[in-house]
Parts: sequence; structure tokens; C-alpha cells
Amino acid sequence: MRVTDGDRRWLAAAASIAARGRPLSRPNPAVGAIVVRDGKVVSHGWTQPGGRPHAEAMALLIAGGDAKGATLYVTLEPCAHRSERGPACADLVCAAGLARVVVGCQDPDPRTSGEGIARIRSSGIECDLTASSECERSLAGYLIRARIRRPEITLKLATSLDGCIAMTDGRSQWITGEAARAHTHAMRARADAILVGGGTLRADAPRLDVRLPGLETLSPERWVLTRGDVPAGWRALPSPDAVYSMSHVQYLFVEGGAQAASAFLKAGLVDQLLLYRAPILIGSGRPSLGDIGLSTLAEAHGQWRLADRRQLGSDTLEVFDRQV
Amino acid sequence: MRVTDGDRRWLAAAASIAARGRPLSRPNPAVGAIVVRDGKVVSHGWTQPGGRPHAEAMALLIAGGDAKGATLYVTLEPCAHRSERGPACADLVCAAGLARVVVGCQDPDPRTSGEGIARIRSSGIECDLTASSECERSLAGYLIRARIRRPEITLKLATSLDGCIAMTDGRSQWITGEAARAHTHAMRARADAILVGGGTLRADAPRLDVRLPGLETLSPERWVLTRGDVPAGWRALPSPDAVYSMSHVQYLFVEGGAQAASAFLKAGLVDQLLLYRAPILIGSGRPSLGDIGLSTLAEAHGQWRLADRRQLGSDTLEVFDRQV
Repeated sequence: MRVTDGDRRWLAAAASIAARGRPLSRPNPAVGAIVVRDGKVVSHGWTQPGGRPHAEAMALLIAGGDAKGATLYVTLEPCAHRSERGPACADLVCAAGLARVVVGCQDPDPRTSGEGIARIRSSGIECDLTASSECERSLAGYLIRARIRRPEITLKLATSLDGCIAMTDGRSQWITGEAARAHTHAMRARADAILVGGGTLRADAPRLDVRLPGLETLSPERWVLTRGDVPAGWRALPSPDAVYSMSHVQYLFVEGGAQAASAFLKAGLVDQLLLYRAPILIGSGRPSLGDIGLSTLAEAHGQWRLADRRQLGSDTLEVFDRQV
Repeated sequence: MRVTDGDRRWLAAAASIAARGRPLSRPNPAVGAIVVRDGKVVSHGWTQPGGRPHAEAMALLIAGGDAKGATLYVTLEPCAHRSERGPACADLVCAAGLARVVVGCQDPDPRTSGEGIARIRSSGIECDLTASSECERSLAGYLIRARIRRPEITLKLATSLDGCIAMTDGRSQWITGEAARAHTHAMRARADAILVGGGTLRADAPRLDVRLPGLETLSPERWVLTRGDVPAGWRALPSPDAVYSMSHVQYLFVEGGAQAASAFLKAGLVDQLLLYRAPILIGSGRPSLGDIGLSTLAEAHGQWRLADRRQLGSDTLEVFDRQV
């Protein structure tokens, strides 16, 4: 069956639901699933803390007999490998009486890669795979880790309209307003690890925790970019390239300052840029970046694509995705 | 009669039409007028080159007998003073058989101020005055000149996401793309005068003309912020405060560089900020501003209000109005 625009919208909805699994699904990917019959949602599910049950298992458990004849939309190919932690989702799917399964992204895990879809099809259930950008985006940390063995890296900058992150003397409280700062805390809560530069750690002693009611326990690991010693409760990353050794981290959130931000950009190790901008001018303040290794203006172009923009009080958040 | 939301929308439409008079209406304000009957446009007009005929005169001339019983929406109070260049618009309005006149802004010119409206009312025509922000905005150059004897001043910045206006060595071709640069030319065509700093003049020798087909003749006067000598075809402004002596200029467009921009901001002489931003990062480039006289971050806040945002190719234009 042809994958329709309607199917793609259901996959995008499943990708939204998947976000609820972040970051507690680790080490598993945060997957989302929706069971739909006659254009109505029967049930939905997302990967539970610790990685089990999987999203499809949750959605099918809730649907029960109502899954019969329905369509399952799932952001990632159902797993094909049995584990002592639970049955393979492909088998659950085959047993649920579904009419159709639509998958937003093939699983790069060699134990599943294509085998989950094949098993579903061989049981007589129609199964369509389509590349959904929303599903890919929602699985970025998992996919990047599987493909190139490092975390997905998000760089956050909070600047004035003229691109300053502080006044000349370093004062930066506050450039952005409360809504933007709360949003940053919510973004922290979605990361596995958070990193600042050594200078920022020494100057600001940031807590880098999540200070949102109910999310305090989601404060990520704290890392600092340094070759030197680090305070208790912190881990040292000697250079941006060392992210390849952060084997348990799917999502890394880099909060600055300018030197750490520039080091990651120079190394080509930023996948997503979160730019919080306040409607203020500072003038002769501290620039948001240092040298990022640019030799001509031409090569600066075509690197970033505006993926989202939203108003946070009087501030604007812009999300830029790295163009691959 | 109460001024309705519908009336305010017609006034906003008249303000849009008024833009067609800029800048050739000088020394007169660029006014817009619409004649409406039964919810339909009968005619419209705007101030013609050189300032005559006025907008209402144009709209009523086109409407002819169809103005009878109609409503005239006009951005600025019809003039009350007779001139050898033409009749007073208030008299034309009284003679046109209109049922009602709605005015978006009282004329600060002492020869008219209130007298135009009074004359229309005394002729038995209903006349409502309401403060329309769109009308005020479209008359900014005229109103600011009338109130505080200087031009309306727009500052243009074209930056990277990190707020740079050039690479360290000064290369700035190009940060923004074609659509943004064409938009800048259109903005130049709406100004009476354009200004750059002395450093920018020496470094870039900018032409600062309007290079859009059909608008070449609208290239504004060229000014440079300097106490020194200027090349032929340029005028010197010794300091931002000297804008009070630009007696014939309603709209001044300041194009940079960073020093000129900062000097105008420091003097509190920027009414509107046009921020063209390309989705690129430069890193350790030239900052968009130097010192603007800020002593605390708190005082940077509340100065600017986002008035418009639009996409120009991959670049974004944001318009900020100075909060009064």
C-alpha cells in the first residue's frame, strides 16, 4: 500500500509521543507508537524508563483486542531479537491481529536491521517503511550513535541581538528572560549529559541542573571540557573529539561558553543549534563565539537549516539543524 | 459614530497605500486615502511626487460623483490651509458629498492641527479621529520631524547568527543573500538620506545607491559620519546630534558600520532597527556594534519591540521599533 500524507502525519504524531521517553529510555532509543483504527487513536505508547517495555509493546498492551484490524504507526522498526528482558516486538506485532504496520525509520541495530519488517511481512501483515524526517529527528541520538559512534550534540547559545553572551566584564544575568531559561532547563532534562567549558566552570560555577518542578531527578551528567582536574560530581572531556568515548551518552547538551562552543563547532561536532535571543543590544560585549576555523565566508553558508522558531516571552528561540 | 475594528482595518489599508508616496512626496508627508461605500473600495489615492496633489484630493478626484454618501479613510487629518499649490483638502472633503470621514492621525502642523477636522464637522459631515498605530508608523518621519525636529532614523544591520558583520579581515561579501540585499535596496529607495561611517566609506567605498530596476532614480542623498573631508557627491554629518540640522530629511537610513551604528545608538538616535540575519556562523569576526554606552544589562531591556519578521530567502529580516 502506498504511504500517504495521512500516514506521515501519524508517524509525526508518534515522533511527538516518543519525546516522552527521553532521556529515561536509555540505553534504548526513545520510540513512539500509535495504534489507529478508522482514523481514530486506539492507543499509544512510548519506551519506558530503562528501555522496557518498548513503545509498541505498551501501545499493543493498552489496545488489547482493539488492535485487531488496526494500523500500528511506530517511529522505529520493531525489534527482531528476543531478550531475557522481554519478547521481540516483531513477534508481538505479528500476534496482535493488526492489519498494517507503518515504520518511520529502519533500525540500524544489526540484530534487527530489516529483519523486524521481514518477520512482520512474512506473517501476512502489510508493513510499510518510509523515511520520516520527524521520526529520524526524534531518534537522532540513537541513530548518530549507531552510525558514527558518538552522541547527538546540541549547542545552546543565549545572546543579545548583536550576538553577545555577556557584557565586557562578564556579567550575563540576565540576557534572556524567565520563559527562555525555563525552556533551557527542559532541554537539559532531555539530555543524558551536559557540558561547559573550563573557563565557564571556573567563572560561573554553574549548577547545570534541571530546576523545573517534577524534573529535578532528570538532571544530566555534568561534564567539563578540560585537560585539567575537575570538581567532585563532574567529569572531564579532554577535547571535543573525545565524545567518541562517551559510549553511554545519546544526547549531549553543550552550554558554552564561547570557547567550548567554538571548539565543538571547529571540530564539526554540533548537530543542532539552539539560539535563544533577547530583544536587546549590548554593544562591545563578549562575543558568542571565538575562532571556528572559517577561512572564507562562502564556506559558512549552507551549513544550517532553520528547523523551528518560537517565541518565549519576549525572547525568540531558533533551532537550526546541521545540514549533512 | 463609534470607530469600529472594520474602520481600523481600512485605516491600516490606507497606511499601506501611503507607502507608495515615499519618499517622493517630500517635503510633504506621504499620506494615504481610501473612499469606501457599502464595504467596497470606490477609489484610493496617495500623496503625489513633490507633495501635490494630496492623497485625499487624488482619491476624491478619482471617485467623482461616487464619493456621495461614502466614507473617506485618511491616514492624516486633511489640511485646513489654502495654498497657491492647491485647495485645502478639508474644503475638498466638505464639497464631495461624503457621509463620513475617519482620520488615523491628527496633523501636528499648526496651520491644520484640529482645524481640518473641525471644518469638516461644521459642514455637517461626521468625522472621527482615532489613533491608528499603522497610520502613525506610516507617518513616522513627518511626525518625528514635527514633534522633535529631526528625521526618523532607521539603523540597518546585516549579521551572521553570532552577530558578526564581517570576517576578522573585514571581508563581508556576502553574509546575506540576494533577496535580503534587494530588500535593503528597496528600503534605501524609501529614505531621503542614507549614511555610513567614515571607516566604512574609506574601506568599502559603498555606492549606496538603489540598484533595483525602475527605482534607480530614487537613490537618496549620501551622507558620511565624519568631521573630516568627504568625497564629491557626499555630505558630512559631524556627529549623530547633527541630525537636528538635516531640516529637509524625513527618513534617514543608517547603514553602518559598527562605529556609526554604535554612535547613533549611544546617542539614543535610532527609532527602528532592521536586522538582516543569515543562517551562518562566523566566529571571531567583526562585531556588529561597539560601545553603546550600556552600564548594566537591566537597562538594555525594554528598549525594542519586535514589529515585523519575514523570511528573505534563507535570511530573516526582523524589524524592531524603539519603545518610547
